[in-house]
Amino acid sequence: MTALQPLIDSIVSDMRKMEDKGRVADYIPPLAQVSPDKFGLAVVLADGQVLTGGDAEEPFSIQSISKVFTLTLALGTAGDQLWRRVSKEPSGSPFNSIVQLENEQGVPRNPFINAGAIVVSDMILARHEPREAIGQVLRLVRDLAGDDTIAIDEHVARAELETGFRNQALANYTKAFGNLHNDVDRVLGVYSHCCSITMSCRQLALAGRYLMLGGRNPETGRQVLSAHRTRRINALMMTCGHYDNSGEFAFRVGLPGKSGVGGGILVVAPGVASIAVWAPGLNAQGNSLLGSLALERLAAGAGWSVFEGG
Amino acid sequence: MTALQPLIDSIVSDMRKMEDKGRVADYIPPLAQVSPDKFGLAVVLADGQVLTGGDAEEPFSIQSISKVFTLTLALGTAGDQLWRRVSKEPSGSPFNSIVQLENEQGVPRNPFINAGAIVVSDMILARHEPREAIGQVLRLVRDLAGDDTIAIDEHVARAELETGFRNQALANYTKAFGNLHNDVDRVLGVYSHCCSITMSCRQLALAGRYLMLGGRNPETGRQVLSAHRTRRINALMMTCGHYDNSGEFAFRVGLPGKSGVGGGILVVAPGVASIAVWAPGLNAQGNSLLGSLALERLAAGAGWSVFEGG
Amino acid sequence: MTALQPLIDSIVSDMRKMEDKGRVADYIPPLAQVSPDKFGLAVVLADGQVLTGGDAEEPFSIQSISKVFTLTLALGTAGDQLWRRVSKEPSGSPFNSIVQLENEQGVPRNPFINAGAIVVSDMILARHEPREAIGQVLRLVRDLAGDDTIAIDEHVARAELETGFRNQALANYTKAFGNLHNDVDRVLGVYSHCCSITMSCRQLALAGRYLMLGGRNPETGRQVLSAHRTRRINALMMTCGHYDNSGEFAFRVGLPGKSGVGGGILVVAPGVASIAVWAPGLNAQGNSLLGSLALERLAAGAGWSVFEGG
Amino acid sequence: MTALQPLIDSIVSDMRKMEDKGRVADYIPPLAQVSPDKFGLAVVLADGQVLTGGDAEEPFSIQSISKVFTLTLALGTAGDQLWRRVSKEPSGSPFNSIVQLENEQGVPRNPFINAGAIVVSDMILARHEPREAIGQVLRLVRDLAGDDTIAIDEHVARAELETGFRNQALANYTKAFGNLHNDVDRVLGVYSHCCSITMSCRQLALAGRYLMLGGRNPETGRQVLSAHRTRRINALMMTCGHYDNSGEFAFRVGLPGKSGVGGGILVVAPGVASIAVWAPGLNAQGNSLLGSLALERLAAGAGWSVFEGG
Repeated sequence: MTALQPLIDSIVSDMRKMEDKGRVADYIPPLAQVSPDKFGLAVVLADGQVLTGGDAEEPFSIQSISKVFTLTLALGTAGDQLWRRVSKEPSGSPFNSIVQLENEQGVPRNPFINAGAIVVSDMILARHEPREAIGQVLRLVRDLAGDDTIAIDEHVARAELETGFRNQALANYTKAFGNLHNDVDRVLGVYSHCCSITMSCRQLALAGRYLMLGGRNPETGRQVLSAHRTRRINALMMTCGHYDNSGEFAFRVGLPGKSGVGGGILVVAPGVASIAVWAPGLNAQGNSLLGSLALERLAAGAGWSVFEGG
Repeated sequence: MTALQPLIDSIVSDMRKMEDKGRVADYIPPLAQVSPDKFGLAVVLADGQVLTGGDAEEPFSIQSISKVFTLTLALGTAGDQLWRRVSKEPSGSPFNSIVQLENEQGVPRNPFINAGAIVVSDMILARHEPREAIGQVLRLVRDLAGDDTIAIDEHVARAELETGFRNQALANYTKAFGNLHNDVDRVLGVYSHCCSITMSCRQLALAGRYLMLGGRNPETGRQVLSAHRTRRINALMMTCGHYDNSGEFAFRVGLPGKSGVGGGILVVAPGVASIAVWAPGLNAQGNSLLGSLALERLAAGAGWSVFEGG
Repeated sequence: MTALQPLIDSIVSDMRKMEDKGRVADYIPPLAQVSPDKFGLAVVLADGQVLTGGDAEEPFSIQSISKVFTLTLALGTAGDQLWRRVSKEPSGSPFNSIVQLENEQGVPRNPFINAGAIVVSDMILARHEPREAIGQVLRLVRDLAGDDTIAIDEHVARAELETGFRNQALANYTKAFGNLHNDVDRVLGVYSHCCSITMSCRQLALAGRYLMLGGRNPETGRQVLSAHRTRRINALMMTCGHYDNSGEFAFRVGLPGKSGVGGGILVVAPGVASIAVWAPGLNAQGNSLLGSLALERLAAGAGWSVFEGG
Repeated sequence: MTALQPLIDSIVSDMRKMEDKGRVADYIPPLAQVSPDKFGLAVVLADGQVLTGGDAEEPFSIQSISKVFTLTLALGTAGDQLWRRVSKEPSGSPFNSIVQLENEQGVPRNPFINAGAIVVSDMILARHEPREAIGQVLRLVRDLAGDDTIAIDEHVARAELETGFRNQALANYTKAFGNLHNDVDRVLGVYSHCCSITMSCRQLALAGRYLMLGGRNPETGRQVLSAHRTRRINALMMTCGHYDNSGEFAFRVGLPGKSGVGGGILVVAPGVASIAVWAPGLNAQGNSLLGSLALERLAAGAGWSVFEGG
């Protein structure tokens, strides 16, 4: 392995110089205000060592990265029953997934597209109050990161709810097929608040440690998820973690990851490292442009691709 | 690691007892005649050791597994130009991919679906005669396996050509968009002959060694493909190797693989093992039913999932 | 022309004997309670003569037939601007039209599918209160039929709102593309109330007279719509009036018509007759099974097809 | 009715002045060479009177207008069995219809899209030689027009066969579903030759008389098709005659019609007139731009819309 800190530093420095930084998400005002010049990177190794570069301590909206944590929570409660209501296949569509919801009778393709995460939110909500369900997710993330300061940006959550017509459509469509048990508004309340969790790269990489460690939270020593299910979440991140860019990400980076439109990506090198990157500008498929590039550089430089051999 | 031979033996024995063996492909007569009771498994380890079980020495039609070898050959010639004519994303469609060819203007989603492999065949054909192009592919496979007895079943090739209306449609459709440079019949001649290569599990696992060894053929010591490109083929096998069941396979087995309707699957544990399994009965998505199950057992038992950690 | 009353009587008698009466819509409870044995038919001729048969005086829920009246009203206000927000093509899809909303960026295919009528309702609502907009539609229908007793079934309207998740999805999806200017709930309030208008065959055939008379309401002598626009509404009823069964209806009946899931169909023989039929059992595409059959018999017997010649 | 000849003359004169003449089809060389300035119009009235304007005597490639004649011939032989292999619904797709072939298992949406006409050609071919089948179609068209000089442009037919990869795809796809009984090449031979029939507006309007006259050929006095089936062909021309522009054409012109990419349109005013127009420039949906406009003017001026009333 190349010495890691110099590699990180050189990546940060190179990314800062890139002219094309992608396009910051503008569908809700609070996201649109973030500077495209931000770039942060944090790596937690299996031995607990933390290395960072750039704006690694600055919190950002994790958005769809939260889908990994809600899936983890729902698997704990619902177990494999969950897979009756959500599939495990890449969506393979440049369009949003409502077409497939129609073709596949209200069963979302995977838990990492919006429709799938909405169904997962419905499972977490179960018979609780939205506030309690949101509290559970937040508690899980804080426990994983070992950091009680992690919070939800209510401003973002409200903006998402007010402008989320597409999510309203997805939720109602799913409900029309009987695959949503709670009221649409309560489910979307949970969903939007989870998306509005705010974390720094350091916090996010810390929270991702259980994915590198077979489900064990090193903070508490407790098993968050069985090793078996943890492997499976990693597999889903590999095949479905980047919307219709998942194949390209696997091809270039070779590691399981999950992106969010806030510009963050959480990536796992199983047994080796938990990595978080943040660069707000997105590519055409809605994944962090410089974040993906930085991860390609990091994985290649450190020799971390799971597809490496010989 | 569990002792491997006993694990293989117990898998073979268990698979033999399974009642539901799936459904043997019947779209061409020669495939339909194969007994659903066949089951073979071969594992080649990084140190060259070969372990087998069941009908591991019996040749079968590798069908779509050949797409891995034609891609390898085409990448050697065309290089990354190849990716201008074929994408790298899972097809995500339970239907055949002609819908996506239309939506995406004749650029197939990936090289492991029929349309993609037809375009790859067109690149291999280039300005050669079909006979020469087929000869190149066969030579590559023989070199990789270190076995000159590997042959093409002309009977199967002819049957495929005579009944392959869907492939004719895909090829013509691709050509309508300008993404096929040679005559449709010549391209399909190459394509069908590659699909009709006949190999045993042992031969196939040997031929797959370069994928576990970063592109090096241990038989000759020569680099068949750069380590970089080999990783990328593995990544594509992970995200796209099993048609619309790729997500499920990654979820259950956790290893890159490519299946064929003859009932074979080639799987790679990078740096560790090259594995071939054969069970002619297919699941609903056209992948070997018992083959997939056996690989799930093998990968779990041997701890080979690339998503393993901690 | 065959003597009309005997033709009507024989049709009513034959329909009563049919064993397969189709399937009564059950997606909202009030519709599911209607007896499948009901059958009514009313014909208003250009000279004002009214002929009826069967349960022609019994009110039923007109459902999607209301889309003709809301379109008429909206064309009066918005004029041809309307066609910037709604297309004029048959939907051509056995599925509900949300797929096309996605492909066509939130512009519904025509004003007679749900998504299109929801956009039309948004135009009618404009800057009014929902109650006022609903009042306008009801007033139009009463004026056209010359009957102030026509009313809205609040029970049905409420049931539609409570269970209309698919319409919620369509409305939100349209709004996500910027093609809905008012709040989703207010628009759907208008939409659902219009669908819940209750009319008998006699009332409905009377209300349809303007479509046979080039836009003139014979009741008042006033032009409800220009002759030009009236022709165009008739054209849309011909190509789009029966969802994905419109081609078949044109083929069999040869007259412009609009069906509703309550089992009613309003049909126009331009210059000759306005016809309403009611039989609650539906065919697979959601149009009245016996109603369609009866209209085929009536049009053939009376020689009313617009495609007749020679 | 306005005096017809002056109306025709004024339309011809106005069309000649239009600046935007659309785009001449260029997918085969012989079509691309036609001047966009050509404009012809011919009207045959029920009493046999023929009125013409512009380039009404100049032959052009009728292309898809031939689908009306092949359907007429096939209905005569296969009868209503035909509708088991072809549907009657508008395709409703801006894309070519291969997507729907997949969704609907090889049954084309209607006989006026390419896939449908290919299946109809297969029925005409039946057990004949292609040459005989082509001869039958040509004989029918000559009989209908009362003109033995009508011929096939072999140059065009050959060009279509050599470049018709999309039709090859459609035919092979249909055959993959078992809905083509003859060899693809033989069927496409028939199909392409029928598309390559060359006629003037005058000849085409004469050939269309049976559609205005309930199926009777006034030339011979013989019934080409029953009145019943003739009405149904007119209905199909109304709902499906202009690809994904059929709704718009019905809306604007209000008459059944069938267009071809050569720039011709055949239109029927049942009982009143058979009309042919020719202007080579096409609109975005592949229908004659000025031809459609001219027909809108003619139908409005003459009061011929079938949706007219009162």
